[in-house]
Amino acid sequence: MLARRDLANAIRFLSMDAVQKADSGHPGMPMGMADIAEVLWNDFLRHNPTNPHWINRDRFVLSNGHGAMLLYSLLHLTGYDLTIEDIKRFRQLHSKTPGHPELGTPGVETTTGPLGQGLANAVGMAIAEKNLAALFNRRELDIMDHYTYAFVGDGCLMEGLSHEVASLAGTLQLGKLIVLYDDNHISIDGNTRGWFTDNTPERFEAYGWHVMPCVDGHDAKSISVAIEEARDVNNKPSLICCQTKIGFGAPNLAGNAKTHGSPLGDAEIAATRQALGWEYPPFFIPVEIYNAWNAKKLGERLETEWQEKFKKYRRANPILAEEFLRRMNGQFPKDWERKSKAFIQTTIEKNQSMATRKASEMCLDGYAALLPELTGGSADLTHSNNTWHAQSKSFTAAQPDGNYIHYGVREFGMFAIMNGLALHGGIIPYGGTFLTFVDYGRNAVRLAALMKQRVIFVLTHDSIGLGEDGPTHQPIEHAAMLRLTPNVTVWRPGDLIETAIAWKSALENQQGPTCLLLSRQNLPTERRDLKTLAHIHKGGYILQDSLKKPQAIIIATGSEVSLALQAANKLTAQGYLIRVVSMPSTTLFDQQDASYKESVLPAKVTARIAIEAGAADFWYKYVGLQGKIVGLNRYGESAPYQDVYAALGLTVEQIEKTLKSVL
Amino acid sequence: MLARRDLANAIRFLSMDAVQKADSGHPGMPMGMADIAEVLWNDFLRHNPTNPHWINRDRFVLSNGHGAMLLYSLLHLTGYDLTIEDIKRFRQLHSKTPGHPELGTPGVETTTGPLGQGLANAVGMAIAEKNLAALFNRRELDIMDHYTYAFVGDGCLMEGLSHEVASLAGTLQLGKLIVLYDDNHISIDGNTRGWFTDNTPERFEAYGWHVMPCVDGHDAKSISVAIEEARDVNNKPSLICCQTKIGFGAPNLAGNAKTHGSPLGDAEIAATRQALGWEYPPFFIPVEIYNAWNAKKLGERLETEWQEKFKKYRRANPILAEEFLRRMNGQFPKDWERKSKAFIQTTIEKNQSMATRKASEMCLDGYAALLPELTGGSADLTHSNNTWHAQSKSFTAAQPDGNYIHYGVREFGMFAIMNGLALHGGIIPYGGTFLTFVDYGRNAVRLAALMKQRVIFVLTHDSIGLGEDGPTHQPIEHAAMLRLTPNVTVWRPGDLIETAIAWKSALENQQGPTCLLLSRQNLPTERRDLKTLAHIHKGGYILQDSLKKPQAIIIATGSEVSLALQAANKLTAQGYLIRVVSMPSTTLFDQQDASYKESVLPAKVTARIAIEAGAADFWYKYVGLQGKIVGLNRYGESAPYQDVYAALGLTVEQIEKTLKSVL
Repeated sequence: MLARRDLANAIRFLSMDAVQKADSGHPGMPMGMADIAEVLWNDFLRHNPTNPHWINRDRFVLSNGHGAMLLYSLLHLTGYDLTIEDIKRFRQLHSKTPGHPELGTPGVETTTGPLGQGLANAVGMAIAEKNLAALFNRRELDIMDHYTYAFVGDGCLMEGLSHEVASLAGTLQLGKLIVLYDDNHISIDGNTRGWFTDNTPERFEAYGWHVMPCVDGHDAKSISVAIEEARDVNNKPSLICCQTKIGFGAPNLAGNAKTHGSPLGDAEIAATRQALGWEYPPFFIPVEIYNAWNAKKLGERLETEWQEKFKKYRRANPILAEEFLRRMNGQFPKDWERKSKAFIQTTIEKNQSMATRKASEMCLDGYAALLPELTGGSADLTHSNNTWHAQSKSFTAAQPDGNYIHYGVREFGMFAIMNGLALHGGIIPYGGTFLTFVDYGRNAVRLAALMKQRVIFVLTHDSIGLGEDGPTHQPIEHAAMLRLTPNVTVWRPGDLIETAIAWKSALENQQGPTCLLLSRQNLPTERRDLKTLAHIHKGGYILQDSLKKPQAIIIATGSEVSLALQAANKLTAQGYLIRVVSMPSTTLFDQQDASYKESVLPAKVTARIAIEAGAADFWYKYVGLQGKIVGLNRYGESAPYQDVYAALGLTVEQIEKTLKSVL
Repeated sequence: MLARRDLANAIRFLSMDAVQKADSGHPGMPMGMADIAEVLWNDFLRHNPTNPHWINRDRFVLSNGHGAMLLYSLLHLTGYDLTIEDIKRFRQLHSKTPGHPELGTPGVETTTGPLGQGLANAVGMAIAEKNLAALFNRRELDIMDHYTYAFVGDGCLMEGLSHEVASLAGTLQLGKLIVLYDDNHISIDGNTRGWFTDNTPERFEAYGWHVMPCVDGHDAKSISVAIEEARDVNNKPSLICCQTKIGFGAPNLAGNAKTHGSPLGDAEIAATRQALGWEYPPFFIPVEIYNAWNAKKLGERLETEWQEKFKKYRRANPILAEEFLRRMNGQFPKDWERKSKAFIQTTIEKNQSMATRKASEMCLDGYAALLPELTGGSADLTHSNNTWHAQSKSFTAAQPDGNYIHYGVREFGMFAIMNGLALHGGIIPYGGTFLTFVDYGRNAVRLAALMKQRVIFVLTHDSIGLGEDGPTHQPIEHAAMLRLTPNVTVWRPGDLIETAIAWKSALENQQGPTCLLLSRQNLPTERRDLKTLAHIHKGGYILQDSLKKPQAIIIATGSEVSLALQAANKLTAQGYLIRVVSMPSTTLFDQQDASYKESVLPAKVTARIAIEAGAADFWYKYVGLQGKIVGLNRYGESAPYQDVYAALGLTVEQIEKTLKSVL
């Protein structure tokens, strides 16, 4: 008769041995949390190893992602497409078992490692579930009805992000979010009493969570009772504080920070085999243990039951069922292409001058009517970011069918929750803050990019053009920083039309996040002919050309396009042959073929200047060492924006002078 | 007889009128917190308006920095060098009264606005006070003995940063930190019940704070009692939750989010004058109110008393007194230049191969012995960041004379606390995390730069060269992002010698923060002649030259320098004339004169390649459009680092091939 401990030990030895073989990794956490994982996965988690994409599966997030071998062990043992050979290739090039869990490995719900973000993703997933359930479930036909479980460690809970998202989760009463805390009092520097003395249960109670303060994390019965209880609490997220020993089972190292991030060594592993009575060689799991873990049959049954329910649902609600599947599969409505193009046409006809943040709001009015999955929000700057549109409705505990999340002053939380919303499926998240404060959540933008998630960052007040709020609020290096981040598409549109095309591009971009950089100040709308309009989506295009071959090119983005045009017109009047290139998205311009790029920026024209109210040096990529940049290598100033532009030399005169200097 | 309310109303009207005149700004908070500020500044704050730099002044931090007019009003009324004309120029170009408080205005202790960071700075200041008191105070001669007060709003407390630093402040038992919370239930989006329902008192109690949960923020007596009580608690930081009404006094708008960030309008201001019985025109303060506020005499007396005490101290402890002043004034010890140069000489002689993070540890061993004000720490990666050195001693509640702070897994908290340590004076802070996780605290790096503070960021695991931990941990865009941030000096040294020079540069840089980007993996040490060594501090220099005029230049940094040399040697053997430029600091290279730069990178040599295991596009600045870059425009991989380098094309062969393609 197998004991539960034997099942848990399978995790322990797979983890220990894989780390030892890789000669790097983190054995302590998988050994400490093995018993908890065993109970959760064998008794509670509703999932189907044969179909990791089953829509209504419970989500499991390993926020303390350095314990990757715990997750890989679970996936392997329960029957996911992750073989023992994959386990042996832990931390090797192009394996399914990288050093931290990465989206793409079957059964991995999100990429984790940067601490706290898995918890935030889980909050996002639980919001998505609550929202989709409210929108789609019908009496006795709960097609969206799953739990979201997360494992977190001391590191996750020390991170500020944990405060932001736990606070919001409490306010939103996410009753189906259950977090299991590996309360082992050890972090990399040693015993946490020197730097982490929070009363964590009290802290989470202050957020309105249901908290079980002290559960023996090595006792299956206690863990099971706690999870049962958590599942029964519907109006509060649950935190189960599991007292564990890091490296549990290692006779000499258990409880020691040394087990955190290094192989135990052959001797200690041998001693652990002895201590735990595990007589099998590395990477060998007895068939009866495999059998006890295997969740494929149960998983198939669970999904089949759900499919049956969904069939009934579809018969009763055929249109709703199609809409549900469309959203969950990330497809566009059939009329999307036609209607979105028609919307762009209306913006062309409007020809209105306005701030691009205002233009963005008009785009939301237009596109959100076509895409109900658009779910917005702001980090407490709703009416500055212009993220609230005609169809917006607040998502709250009492109104879970809303499509607008008041994230509060929690930029990082918002970004990482948006990643969770996108990962869950059924939702296209967008959220706003000032461009400067993308800093607060930068690593979540990066993870959206690494995971190639469709998340839309609405980043307003995109330059010194915000004026009086001053240098703390005026971004300088941010546009460049985002452009240099792989897989991030950046748009800095200059007027309503470019904004409309940027938004369409963002909505259609399923290969990564998009950052929309939008002005606070009003900008004129530029007139364009049809040919010019047809090129905007390429990210960079000739907005105004010289009559004959250009002598010089001025490249500009966003709010500086109109300055460039004014300067070009002055220079043209003086007889110069000037081309003006609007470059709202360097990301997309870089993706065009060489001949298009050459047609816009001919290699022979080396007299080039770029103008942008941001970090100058980024632009050498387009102007080269023979060109010059009218940009910023310093912080801004607090003053009306026209004064700031003038003081910092972003003027028509400066462009004119600079252009002459490169001819 | 003046009522206290009249004194507070002076703040209210200065704030309302200045915002109205500027036609932008935040009147609600100054009106809401005016009574609290009046009590704190008139009854408790020990400061000297005539000398804002008095070493032992109480520190006051306005963490909710959008309420700038509150602080400017206080500074003006109490007698700082901030005239009514300055107040009238609120939010105008080059005024002393920018939109958010900026270091440089007399009496402003730190630049605030990005929420939560003022609180973190205050925690840093309180740590500095506790540390310096432990080191320097002698019986009955407490030359370092002041409180740190901070005002915070709902926004600060929603930010994750508040969790990180409040948690650590509790652990460190910072009894002289007193935080006054503007508990007004309003943030920009409206009433906070929709997004912020924390039981904040309970939360702070969970951190080990002394909390007064409910004080009437408009009742001077209650405020006074609460502050008295907070000052009496020596082993816990204090949070005073002040119930206030935003925009207090405005008959129609008080309590409304509309007062947060917009002028009240002439009509409402007039109505407020009526309601509060304030019969004076804008910017007029009656002399008796000025007199009641004026703190110059008292301040001078307080400082004089302290000077007397310091004289006694100096007589009793002459050497210690000199050392105290040296540290507080940010001066170097007399023998610094000689000994630091001697230390560099020893590193030249060592000629050892090692990871630059290990080299950094050796530098700390060397320099910390000369500079006891060096105060280190790590966000729970001490032995990975190699931030612990031979003289390190943990700073804890029980051991406040330590010089090493275990920040826990709190990158943003660490960075923003380091800013507070630097601002306080007496300490040169350095702190470590992985380069990728600079993301978590990026905005604090930016504020260090904006404030030109000497803060040293030790950022190890600086590329895909960290290997197995994989893409979540492998920085790509980070070096470029830091280099593009104004006032940040970035070093990415390639061996022990460059690391030693980088550290010396960082320690001597009093014009802003320095980021040291250090490798996890071992790197060879390159041999250099004396002339070459003499150029390292210029940030970029010829490491190896061709025998005749170079045909081509290879620029490299950090771990890629040895690859560049290997490639150059292969190419030289084939008859090419190749120069290798090591560019550990583009920041400093850019600051050299044109002739030096031309001597290193002659304009005529357009066949250039740059190699760096980071975002490629940054390097167009040095190689131009005729050059090429061997770098990365994608995320890394989890694998042994040699495999990652090979898979991503950072190889000698690739450099060789690329170089030939530009010739």
